[in-house]
Amino acid sequence: MKYQGETTLSIALIHHPVVNKRAEIIGSAVTNLDIHDIARTARTYGILQYFIATPYEDQQQLVNELLAHWETGHGATYNPARREALSIVRLIDSLESAIAILTEKCGKKPMVVATSATFRETTIGYSELGKKIREGEQVLLIFGTAHGLAPEVIQLADATLPPIKGGTEYNHLSVRSAASIIIDRLLGS
Amino acid sequence: MKYQGETTLSIALIHHPVVNKRAEIIGSAVTNLDIHDIARTARTYGILQYFIATPYEDQQQLVNELLAHWETGHGATYNPARREALSIVRLIDSLESAIAILTEKCGKKPMVVATSATFRETTIGYSELGKKIREGEQVLLIFGTAHGLAPEVIQLADATLPPIKGGTEYNHLSVRSAASIIIDRLLGS
Repeated sequence: MKYQGETTLSIALIHHPVVNKRAEIIGSAVTNLDIHDIARTARTYGILQYFIATPYEDQQQLVNELLAHWETGHGATYNPARREALSIVRLIDSLESAIAILTEKCGKKPMVVATSATFRETTIGYSELGKKIREGEQVLLIFGTAHGLAPEVIQLADATLPPIKGGTEYNHLSVRSAASIIIDRLLGS
Repeated sequence: MKYQGETTLSIALIHHPVVNKRAEIIGSAVTNLDIHDIARTARTYGILQYFIATPYEDQQQLVNELLAHWETGHGATYNPARREALSIVRLIDSLESAIAILTEKCGKKPMVVATSATFRETTIGYSELGKKIREGEQVLLIFGTAHGLAPEVIQLADATLPPIKGGTEYNHLSVRSAASIIIDRLLGS
């Protein structure tokens, strides 16, 4: 059942494979605030699903405990608004699983769009992608933790959004800030 | 001395007086991530100064220790990009101090603009305010922690930006996300 204002945009936050500052492939730890902050932004803008992708069992357990606290534990009654935000969060092991879930749910493979702090080929503009979503196209937008998505993840994408530039040469937004800005550029009025 | 891309927009994150969910006046605790995340966004977009306002001495000490770690301690060599972001942060006791510092620095009082999750009178649009900044007007944009700025702070403002709406009735962005989105709307290209 759709919620009021729900769109056809889903997002995934990838914890493996990502790169470190030496461009080596690593897995990163899940952080509490990445889940909360991005869920709150996602729910504000009508995101369909917010996937948290990690293949590590201990990290999966942490995420499940956090979600249970807010879904049925003390958090659910203490802060119903937070429960509502976290209701769109879904834990998965990999990007491939998010694609499979959305394909099953929507009857066709979603358009997968990567985000990056550097320019890539196959770029799609913010307004062009926003238009596709408003027209009902299923889109899965992917964000990397640490120093960004591994090349093998970006290769799975159908397109890449241009990096966010703020008029300076400083290029170190947090993934929480980048996700908020990108979602607003796509869906904000 | 100006840095490359520096604008005439400053921001202040207010920890007192703000309101809790029952609209009572409170003071909130400074959080590490509010300083880091918002500083990174601010530096990306050429913000002149990012003021952290708290009247509490223990909280001021925490902020000073954090800034010292990144300015001259281990953090400064471990992550120079973070040092650069935090170099625009300035600890103050109140909004009035931020106004006084900018008035001294710029030779006239800045235009003070409040942000809020609810509509207020004296609203100014994002594009209109962005234009003023690009034309060189000194603007101080203020954000509230907890459940938002106290009425007495909003009364100090010359104007208020409209709340961020995402197409749903859900209205619970983190201040970190709200600051990123608002700064992008004002200064993003």
